[in-house]
Amino acid sequence: MKMGVLGSGIVAQGLSARLAELGHNVVIGTRDSEKLRGWQSSNQKVLIGSFAETAAHGAIVINATNGAGSLSALTIAGEENLADKILIDVSNPLDFSNGFPPSLTVFGNDSLAEQIQRAFPMTKVVKTLNTVTARVMTHPLEVANGDHHVFVSANDPDAKAQVIELLRTFGWLHIFDLGDLSTARGAEAYVMLWVRLYGTLNTSMVNIKVIK
Amino acid sequence: MKMGVLGSGIVAQGLSARLAELGHNVVIGTRDSEKLRGWQSSNQKVLIGSFAETAAHGAIVINATNGAGSLSALTIAGEENLADKILIDVSNPLDFSNGFPPSLTVFGNDSLAEQIQRAFPMTKVVKTLNTVTARVMTHPLEVANGDHHVFVSANDPDAKAQVIELLRTFGWLHIFDLGDLSTARGAEAYVMLWVRLYGTLNTSMVNIKVIK
Repeated sequence: MKMGVLGSGIVAQGLSARLAELGHNVVIGTRDSEKLRGWQSSNQKVLIGSFAETAAHGAIVINATNGAGSLSALTIAGEENLADKILIDVSNPLDFSNGFPPSLTVFGNDSLAEQIQRAFPMTKVVKTLNTVTARVMTHPLEVANGDHHVFVSANDPDAKAQVIELLRTFGWLHIFDLGDLSTARGAEAYVMLWVRLYGTLNTSMVNIKVIK
Repeated sequence: MKMGVLGSGIVAQGLSARLAELGHNVVIGTRDSEKLRGWQSSNQKVLIGSFAETAAHGAIVINATNGAGSLSALTIAGEENLADKILIDVSNPLDFSNGFPPSLTVFGNDSLAEQIQRAFPMTKVVKTLNTVTARVMTHPLEVANGDHHVFVSANDPDAKAQVIELLRTFGWLHIFDLGDLSTARGAEAYVMLWVRLYGTLNTSMVNIKVIK
């Protein structure tokens, strides 16, 4: 499948490499293609594009930009290039203005996922993967053989179902459907606990399992 | 041990009953003792006091008031009655001003636990149990035989150790020391995810386990 991954950091790189490994036709999109030249030399199946080229390429587009810059990156990518497509939002609205650990730029009765959905009403936004580190997103079996949960929030049931299928190809065994996109408020807020788990355990290879 | 439980809701009632069952000498504190008369008739080991009487009674005091009213309740309880004592804060700063699900009144670079600590600098505030429903706080084995975590945040190591011992007497098997009291920001923010788990699973008998 044609996949467009917006972003140039470790999350975008990891997702692009994994999708290419799984046989998808991947373009990674960045403001500054020079930044990715070194990485691409060992990931030659992934092509580099502008934000707009990447969004236009993808049948599914992934927002793996920094949360603080996501709305502007998506605006540059172009509403017309995102219309009627699934946009998987894996970003977090991290606010580092007071250093580490971060706070969030949006919280409570709103979320970054909902902000994106409101800005791009023709796009089917699916929030997922934001609760784990880049490596765990794409290789969940590397933590406790996959005995932990990833969360999914979306308004469109078909889009959600397609993303769940994609997550299974990454190796995800436990996929928790939180509900509509407003439930992303919970998944985004949880990251405030994740940074504390990371701080205490001194590893980012950590996740949670829902127990009932 | 002499225990003072501030609050009159289901959390305060559950903690008071459990502590009395475990042999502690418990006073439950409320603004309106009439509210608790019916409950007390089947929990006669627990005495009812004012906020100040309850705080004065406890060698350990538990804040089980509504988070939105906790600072004022503790002020009424009296700084002198809380000084040099452990205050276990199990409350959440829930903001229902926009209905359910709630947001939080404090978030990000601060937490209710830290607000309480700043207001009562002579008191040893320990944040715990706020991430689970009242029944799970006191009967953790009723969810998956206890195969899930409770979090603890505190600045004072001895106070934290005492609270961890108390949690073990409730049946807690997995107690996660998050670190100093600022880590309560993570445990409080997590409640935003908890309300979504509750909404989806339709049961409050749910918790998370940290997996690495």
